[in-house]
Amino acid sequence: MSAQKPSIPRGTRDFGPAVVARRNYIFGIIRRTFEKFGYAPLETPTLENLSVLTGKYGEEGDQLLFKVLNSGDFAKDVTPEDLAAENRSKRILPKVAEKGLRYDLTVPFARYVVMNRNTLVFPFKRYQIQPVWRADRPQRGRYREFYQCDADVVGTDSLLCEAEIVLMMSEVLTQLGLTEHTIKINHRRVLGAFYQALGGEGTEVDLFTAIDKLDKIGREGVEKELAGRGFSPAATERLFDLLGVGGDFAEKLERLLAAFVTAGVEPENADGYKGLQDLKRVYDYLVSFGFDKFENLEFDVTLARGLSYYTGCIFEIKINNVNMGSVSGGGRYDNLTGAFGLPGVSGVGFSFGVDRLYDCLDELNLFPPDAATTTRCLVANFDAESEAAVLPVLRQLREAGIPSELFPEAGKLKKQFQYADQKGIPYVLLQGSEERAAGQFKLKNLGTGEERTVSLEEVLAELAK
Amino acid sequence: MSAQKPSIPRGTRDFGPAVVARRNYIFGIIRRTFEKFGYAPLETPTLENLSVLTGKYGEEGDQLLFKVLNSGDFAKDVTPEDLAAENRSKRILPKVAEKGLRYDLTVPFARYVVMNRNTLVFPFKRYQIQPVWRADRPQRGRYREFYQCDADVVGTDSLLCEAEIVLMMSEVLTQLGLTEHTIKINHRRVLGAFYQALGGEGTEVDLFTAIDKLDKIGREGVEKELAGRGFSPAATERLFDLLGVGGDFAEKLERLLAAFVTAGVEPENADGYKGLQDLKRVYDYLVSFGFDKFENLEFDVTLARGLSYYTGCIFEIKINNVNMGSVSGGGRYDNLTGAFGLPGVSGVGFSFGVDRLYDCLDELNLFPPDAATTTRCLVANFDAESEAAVLPVLRQLREAGIPSELFPEAGKLKKQFQYADQKGIPYVLLQGSEERAAGQFKLKNLGTGEERTVSLEEVLAELAK
Repeated sequence: MSAQKPSIPRGTRDFGPAVVARRNYIFGIIRRTFEKFGYAPLETPTLENLSVLTGKYGEEGDQLLFKVLNSGDFAKDVTPEDLAAENRSKRILPKVAEKGLRYDLTVPFARYVVMNRNTLVFPFKRYQIQPVWRADRPQRGRYREFYQCDADVVGTDSLLCEAEIVLMMSEVLTQLGLTEHTIKINHRRVLGAFYQALGGEGTEVDLFTAIDKLDKIGREGVEKELAGRGFSPAATERLFDLLGVGGDFAEKLERLLAAFVTAGVEPENADGYKGLQDLKRVYDYLVSFGFDKFENLEFDVTLARGLSYYTGCIFEIKINNVNMGSVSGGGRYDNLTGAFGLPGVSGVGFSFGVDRLYDCLDELNLFPPDAATTTRCLVANFDAESEAAVLPVLRQLREAGIPSELFPEAGKLKKQFQYADQKGIPYVLLQGSEERAAGQFKLKNLGTGEERTVSLEEVLAELAK
Repeated sequence: MSAQKPSIPRGTRDFGPAVVARRNYIFGIIRRTFEKFGYAPLETPTLENLSVLTGKYGEEGDQLLFKVLNSGDFAKDVTPEDLAAENRSKRILPKVAEKGLRYDLTVPFARYVVMNRNTLVFPFKRYQIQPVWRADRPQRGRYREFYQCDADVVGTDSLLCEAEIVLMMSEVLTQLGLTEHTIKINHRRVLGAFYQALGGEGTEVDLFTAIDKLDKIGREGVEKELAGRGFSPAATERLFDLLGVGGDFAEKLERLLAAFVTAGVEPENADGYKGLQDLKRVYDYLVSFGFDKFENLEFDVTLARGLSYYTGCIFEIKINNVNMGSVSGGGRYDNLTGAFGLPGVSGVGFSFGVDRLYDCLDELNLFPPDAATTTRCLVANFDAESEAAVLPVLRQLREAGIPSELFPEAGKLKKQFQYADQKGIPYVLLQGSEERAAGQFKLKNLGTGEERTVSLEEVLAELAK
């Protein structure tokens, strides 16, 4: 095979050492927080059967699934008629591919729960940090291969779970230094009561979809969209009265309750009231935890979330001092596993988007300076004799847990310092013949430029810091 | 879509919480060791262009690549002639798929080095821990999706790298508790000298392939195979004289040197001598590090390794008290990136097979008992009142870094204890109304069965242990 200029597929990325280290810094904080709250790790295969994936993400989602060709003579069942048909690729697909790449972490989780229903202990709290693949058109910030970080608990209706999700969100963001954030919470049933208050015009899905766009297209845009979908101007007017309700968390709860009564939302239907009660309960849990004022938590009645399977509380996080979409979202669902023949499994979960978190930290310069480095000390290599002499020292550094390396070739110190510099190694340790005779070392701090003549004990003490 | 019984593709696996935790224990030791020696993490995409992957793993490897269908109307360029051809799938493949799944970590690494040749600092030391995919026939211990843990350094010929690979291998195994291991080392040029000593009969590749099978098929099998491939009985006799050379590391080096002289291996060709010198240099490095006797290191002249691209030292690890193939292997190569138009990049690397390591640890019962657990304390939930009262305690446990959870529903303690038991949570913390009145807790150790009445300070002290 002749030499070729290699490339990677559009929408995919190589992560070099510095970026991996920074990403691992983010993953580490998320993982430790999930575990601190009792969530345990799960990993599912990259390859899933298409029978598991197809039909779970809507028509568009099915298009965006990456399908994997069957092995061997994959085309053996394709007929000339298939090829001649107008929808040839759709006809041929089930004959040539039975597996696909994981599209999200929720469907594999549901599949896992169903397959292991008899051995799992419920409530089952799992987190999952793995890549997913979507054949989307790549663009800035949108990739075909990207990581999701999900935490879900299934098998309980307790709103303690919702309250702890708020705490986990808050802890991760605080630890990352993203203090300027808003955790938005709403409830699908509150939105359902809105729908009822509007007199049942149009459809509920159209209403939610329009509200979801408020951030992007503004009030006028939403009004236009609702008008096009069969909502009267009067109903839209009432909607914006409800969406405009002000006050803090408790005040909004009260005012909405009053508005529902005025609007004649039926108490025996109770959906909207139940939604408000749930939100109050979540808030009360946070107060019981000892958070008197949870200032970053906002009851945002305009939050709708796109996904159709949510039925209870819904969440979203916005970083206030960066111009970017939400970095996390989630909600409660009633029927995660119904498509796999196990109805009635309720749960609640949420997900962090690590690429967006990365971009936020990068923009705000919040990565700790040593997040990108692994090696702490480069031992310089003067010549064969010095090399042999410093090997026991190198061993001691490593035994003390200090990641260290000896430049593998004797030669120009300039090159060796460049190596340390470009790799972000903070210290260079030197022992020329003079130092060797005196049983000492030169230790240079590349950050400050300071160079000191020190003993081995001093080296170990300094580098262990 | 009607309900279906979900499954996962053959040769793939779900990893539940306990298994993920144990696997992470192994990955953690490998990662920390790699980093301690100055290797930095790299991650490459799951999807690679087929132009990068194809032709790198031999004909069989090309068959075993998982290919990903192009998006949209993938079949648009397939013709009726393609379909009618005897090798239809081979003809159709390039028209319907241009991407595939990563097959190993070496080719993506080579591609990365070539694509980033102008910005990378050499020597470039990278490690990579990621899954790979092969459409192999699944069988016990062989999966279609499995992890590799590679460390490679490119851009230097220094044999310090080989010595440090031995140290890294040794450190990982020792930390895992796999003390009964043998690190086998040999050199391709020593095998080359064997070939020369045999008089250049047959081909070198045939000789290496036959030697590689010695473990499996024994001396007779190898003799038969060599006879079938054009080697005379006299040559095979000479081969076994060389393979049978005994003694410790230094003695084998000397005896082989003498044997090469006797056999008339040409000094000016020098290949075999260079191989012996390299091995001596690696050994001397280990001695300089302060390892007087490296008892687990064996100069095994029968070690050949299957891969054709090795040109220098080669390695393999065998766990002696488990009946299993090698858990690690590697070697030096001269021309990693030649296929991508960048000749002359020399390097050396090795890889751990994490599935085999897992099975060894499992069989020898070497996983630490807490490797499978995340949550350390379950707080029991008696009723709404007790729930509200223990929330601040739960918060304090977590703030002290102790992974803890409150059972999310009030109710039967038996169920809550079962939950703790099945999840492997070692402690249950209880505060009934009586304890609450006294400002105390009951702390039950599920391992020992011991239950004590304690203060919050005592709880924190005990659980922080």
